[in-house]
Amino acid sequence: MNETMNGAEALVRTLLAGGIDTCFANPGTSEMHFVAALDRYPAMRCVLALFEGVATGAADGYARMAEKPAATLLHLGAGLANGLANLHNARRANTPMVNVIGDHATYHRALDAPLTSDVEAVARTWSHWVRSTETPAAVGPDTAEAIRVAMTAPGKLASLILPGDAAWDMGGVPAEALAVAPRRKVDDGAIELAARALGSGEPALLLVAGKGTRADALADAGRISAKTGARLLAQTSNARMERGAGRVNVDRVPYPVDMAVTTLSGLRHVILVGAKAPVGFFAYPGKPGKLYPPDCAIHVLAEPADDIADALARLSERVGGHTVAVPITQRAAPVRATGAITLEGIAHVVAAHLPENAIVADESITAGRNFFPFTKGAAPHDWLQITGGAIGIGLPLALGAAIACPDRPVVCLEADGSAMYTIQALWSQAREQANVTTVILNNGSYATLRGELANVGAHNPGPTALGMIDLGRPALDFVALAKGMGVPATVAEDLDSFDRAFKAAVSEPGPKVIDLRL
Amino acid sequence: MNETMNGAEALVRTLLAGGIDTCFANPGTSEMHFVAALDRYPAMRCVLALFEGVATGAADGYARMAEKPAATLLHLGAGLANGLANLHNARRANTPMVNVIGDHATYHRALDAPLTSDVEAVARTWSHWVRSTETPAAVGPDTAEAIRVAMTAPGKLASLILPGDAAWDMGGVPAEALAVAPRRKVDDGAIELAARALGSGEPALLLVAGKGTRADALADAGRISAKTGARLLAQTSNARMERGAGRVNVDRVPYPVDMAVTTLSGLRHVILVGAKAPVGFFAYPGKPGKLYPPDCAIHVLAEPADDIADALARLSERVGGHTVAVPITQRAAPVRATGAITLEGIAHVVAAHLPENAIVADESITAGRNFFPFTKGAAPHDWLQITGGAIGIGLPLALGAAIACPDRPVVCLEADGSAMYTIQALWSQAREQANVTTVILNNGSYATLRGELANVGAHNPGPTALGMIDLGRPALDFVALAKGMGVPATVAEDLDSFDRAFKAAVSEPGPKVIDLRL
Repeated sequence: MNETMNGAEALVRTLLAGGIDTCFANPGTSEMHFVAALDRYPAMRCVLALFEGVATGAADGYARMAEKPAATLLHLGAGLANGLANLHNARRANTPMVNVIGDHATYHRALDAPLTSDVEAVARTWSHWVRSTETPAAVGPDTAEAIRVAMTAPGKLASLILPGDAAWDMGGVPAEALAVAPRRKVDDGAIELAARALGSGEPALLLVAGKGTRADALADAGRISAKTGARLLAQTSNARMERGAGRVNVDRVPYPVDMAVTTLSGLRHVILVGAKAPVGFFAYPGKPGKLYPPDCAIHVLAEPADDIADALARLSERVGGHTVAVPITQRAAPVRATGAITLEGIAHVVAAHLPENAIVADESITAGRNFFPFTKGAAPHDWLQITGGAIGIGLPLALGAAIACPDRPVVCLEADGSAMYTIQALWSQAREQANVTTVILNNGSYATLRGELANVGAHNPGPTALGMIDLGRPALDFVALAKGMGVPATVAEDLDSFDRAFKAAVSEPGPKVIDLRL
Repeated sequence: MNETMNGAEALVRTLLAGGIDTCFANPGTSEMHFVAALDRYPAMRCVLALFEGVATGAADGYARMAEKPAATLLHLGAGLANGLANLHNARRANTPMVNVIGDHATYHRALDAPLTSDVEAVARTWSHWVRSTETPAAVGPDTAEAIRVAMTAPGKLASLILPGDAAWDMGGVPAEALAVAPRRKVDDGAIELAARALGSGEPALLLVAGKGTRADALADAGRISAKTGARLLAQTSNARMERGAGRVNVDRVPYPVDMAVTTLSGLRHVILVGAKAPVGFFAYPGKPGKLYPPDCAIHVLAEPADDIADALARLSERVGGHTVAVPITQRAAPVRATGAITLEGIAHVVAAHLPENAIVADESITAGRNFFPFTKGAAPHDWLQITGGAIGIGLPLALGAAIACPDRPVVCLEADGSAMYTIQALWSQAREQANVTTVILNNGSYATLRGELANVGAHNPGPTALGMIDLGRPALDFVALAKGMGVPATVAEDLDSFDRAFKAAVSEPGPKVIDLRL
């Protein structure tokens, strides 16, 4: 037995050996040995969160930008439970993540102490892989396996449960990194089927997602579209899209069902490129669940786990895409927005001042649904969305992206209602001096639900029903909330003050909040 | 088929028929029909929460005081996930609760839309009972069964999953309330065994919990103790204890393992009265898990689901408790606390100004561990604790208690770190003008973890480890946070200013926050 190292230290060393050097943590008693080991391994950066949903959401944002997993450190079943909603989003983003969840010592579980719960059952709800590592000797190999699973395409959630005694007992042995299977190249048959659909002369759509929304893949997708006349769209919510001036612009399938059905009407072929066949976010009485026409054929060019960039390059070659220029978007002249706040005006301000290489974390929900077209000619940037609809990811996502890319400014476009789910992220942003400008689109309501009341057939809602979607009594003051967590903040009540505040915020380092009163 | 009512309306009517008239809600699209029905049923009070953990924690506080369940209204698997940590605490408190969780329409689930998850699997993690009600006709009977289960002693968590189409389709039929089995009277044999242990002449302990910590039950427990010489203690964490002047004072088993072992040393008999045999909250290397001596016999007088008050009354009669006076606690003269802040001084201020019939929601963790002895002679009050160790319940618990008892002032003693998990509760307190005075014990750290580092054997922690339990960079400003959510707040930095602020806060209606800087 190794008498020089406990299980917790073997865990930290195995994570580092596997390339994981960032951990978003909300630790408790059962995680204190991991915490204690940190002083001996300065290569492991540990970011403290005041709530577990911040940790999991930040790990998602980190991995989307760093192209490798972060770890999270969570405290037993209840701590993990607090992080589940953003694990849901991460799973829908195909984000790689290694969750380390402390548990009671193995021999303490049977005593049913107050904090005891079935940690494995909680972890299984959204994890692709769950293992409880019962001895210090098993910690290294189990951690290496967790990393391997997490990094397997298209990216998975691995949850390692670490009982107290496995962490504190001696006998830990760090494990080397395991080989990760490369992304699968798609068969020639898939290329050929897609090429035939594109060559059919019938209306066709190339629907991209996952690695298909990165600049290189989009260049090929743009050429295919230009050459064949097929339309090009991304799915409604995307983990990371590289866009802006000099890149191929791609619109998204609209969120509202009626708009989506109109957008997709007349299609005879949808070619899925890391995407799923488009379905409604919710069901509504009398509206379809599938958004594409009934007689439209669905072809799969590439699954999310496949080598999507390679598939697009080969398809482009096959249809003669290389004979046409990449249809890149030109830099748009900034539009000066002034006067009363409009959603279009907000988008113009963001587009005008978005720094080169910025990262946008977008949880703007209703207010932001139309920001996309107005920002397509902005400086090149990455656009990260909420992928699973579990609101409360925007602020953590921005934190994680800023930790992954300290040299790139992050802009968070955040709805007021969604912001309040994980508002604690601002404290971590202040503590880490993360370079994040958060714009709160403060409309004083769950505005999306106003439309949804009508969509589900609940017309003419009364005052009680309307009260349940009203955030204005009392009004949320995000300047005070930010100040309470150490983030400088300012109010903007018209486009001129927003323009000044946004321009200043993105040009200075460190976190800022702009409370934009709609 | 009933063409006059949809499933959502049948749900609301069945809840009302079963005596449930309060709902803590964070609704989304799939819950809009429930929300729309509220205008037709003003008897149903719906309290909006900005985060689901506030809703479940408030439902716990409500039920502990109202002696009947509240409903929660949550949005699919991810929304439920956000409420799980406080369901853990509620389960440990034996709190009755009916959770209504909206889901996609039944026919939409197979499409695997972004927010789709296995809601039943998420609900099963902490619920005693889970059912997905698939048709409008089933909603009424299923809701009635959920209420029956929730109200079955000692109190259970019932989770009803309501798909969109079951809510919006016509055919709903409200159901009458079902009969709930009464609490079981314990056998005469259990009384006899306990009486013999008490009469053995050997050191014995009466350990109370659940309904055993209410005033009437404690009066009998106090008589038994006075008559037989047995010691009387409550378990470490209790759902609701009636205490203060005119009642029988009962100390609790200490949280720190060493103190608990010392407290329980020498015992030969522990008689469990709705309590569990005492075990350590966590395991620590080299320390015992069971806190009582190895040669101590454990006797069960009453299980949590039994009629505990009856069992104590019969045991008291059996041992001659009726021949002695109830050993009630006298009203203690207020101690004037002044000068620099001490934990003892804080307790004296609370004891001096605690109003008659106040409710104390206690999540003070480290700072508050010694408040108990100093408040035993305060005006009679109820003391509610965090029962499951999933921090982040204090502010919601206080909200729920205030909704249940609008005529009783609520005092929330809250640790800074714990407060940040569900800080959104302050907004609901402001919206409802809940009569809650929250005292934030702001020590700028997860102070409990400082001790736990040493307890688990991680001595001499370095700056990185210490940084992970430090909440002081940046300092949390709870005055600003409260202001941001519409709650008036003030800072107290010595006992004199705390005395003034606390006295004023508890004598005025509506929510207040005191940021007590330790």
